[in-house]
Amino acid sequence: MKIESSLIFVETTGDTDVMDVTSEVREKLLQSNISNGSIILFVSGSTAALTTIEFEDGAVDDLKKAIERIAPRDIRYEHDRRWGDGNGYSHVRAAMLGASLTIPVVDKKPLLGTWQQTVLLDFDNRPRKREITVQIMGE
Amino acid sequence: MKIESSLIFVETTGDTDVMDVTSEVREKLLQSNISNGSIILFVSGSTAALTTIEFEDGAVDDLKKAIERIAPRDIRYEHDRRWGDGNGYSHVRAAMLGASLTIPVVDKKPLLGTWQQTVLLDFDNRPRKREITVQIMGE
Amino acid sequence: MKIESSLIFVETTGDTDVMDVTSEVREKLLQSNISNGSIILFVSGSTAALTTIEFEDGAVDDLKKAIERIAPRDIRYEHDRRWGDGNGYSHVRAAMLGASLTIPVVDKKPLLGTWQQTVLLDFDNRPRKREITVQIMGE
Repeated sequence: MKIESSLIFVETTGDTDVMDVTSEVREKLLQSNISNGSIILFVSGSTAALTTIEFEDGAVDDLKKAIERIAPRDIRYEHDRRWGDGNGYSHVRAAMLGASLTIPVVDKKPLLGTWQQTVLLDFDNRPRKREITVQIMGE
Repeated sequence: MKIESSLIFVETTGDTDVMDVTSEVREKLLQSNISNGSIILFVSGSTAALTTIEFEDGAVDDLKKAIERIAPRDIRYEHDRRWGDGNGYSHVRAAMLGASLTIPVVDKKPLLGTWQQTVLLDFDNRPRKREITVQIMGE
Repeated sequence: MKIESSLIFVETTGDTDVMDVTSEVREKLLQSNISNGSIILFVSGSTAALTTIEFEDGAVDDLKKAIERIAPRDIRYEHDRRWGDGNGYSHVRAAMLGASLTIPVVDKKPLLGTWQQTVLLDFDNRPRKREITVQIMGE
């Protein structure tokens, strides 16, 4: 077994920007010396998250609305009262969705469903440059 | 270290069917040549998810109700307006719960708590045949 | 590649206690013989979860309030009606947040963001002694 690490760089608009990074994930696997195993994705930072979804405008919009129901942007947050940076809602959203994602790999391909894409969600209240750490483990 | 891949097949009724797959997970570990490491589970498809819960009718029912509060079945979804397949709520639920789960393994047993089972949640609006990819990594 | 397993012990007050375990995670990595790879964390038990958040009182309080919106403590739970242990809300919360977390490791350090801490959430309705299983995989 081997392990390989690399990074995916993504520029976001913030404000619950949902970015499809599936082609970057597929590219990393094609470039890899590992054919079978798992790809682990992790976004550093406390206002972003990773998940999978059918990446089409409707479903993405629906997801944003559900997240808004759980942690509305315009209610009062203690984080904002203390630190004044206005992104209390971003921290809550990120903690609930989660920063890590693991996908099995067979023949250098991620075992995603046909309509299942890998997305980065940037909840911060401003544009950000994000790094997703990619680790491919296997043989 | 070694890695082994296999599949668990599950037939669901859809409609937020919650299926206990713990015995299948335990069986895969007993059949494995790996004794210590991790078992990675991943469900392909954008309308299903994996998590752990105490698998008894009450807690499962309570979980379904909480999911219904977050992404109610009968509100308007953009996904449905565009594609007409009526499972917009399924996509949102799946993206929020997450498709992957990793459990440590010691002596060919998953380190689940006594009352902690591994479950597949099928949020689609019709019965489905699901595949859970199983990867056991370790030595 | 190698794999190493160990445990982090945490005493909680329960009642959605959020405990920062980042220093324990860093300590495990410093003690390890593995420099590059991943650290997998898993909490056994069906009323606790793991995630990352900026660990400061405001953001933690905001997260607790969001969790209370999703699975309020004082509504009726079927689990409680059947089993009478009063922690139905705890099971729902734990299933939604998730029991596992995977973080990449480079040079014996977890690739967390500057303001991103690793936390255990104990949702049970009483103090608990928790075990977090730690697995470090890599080389």
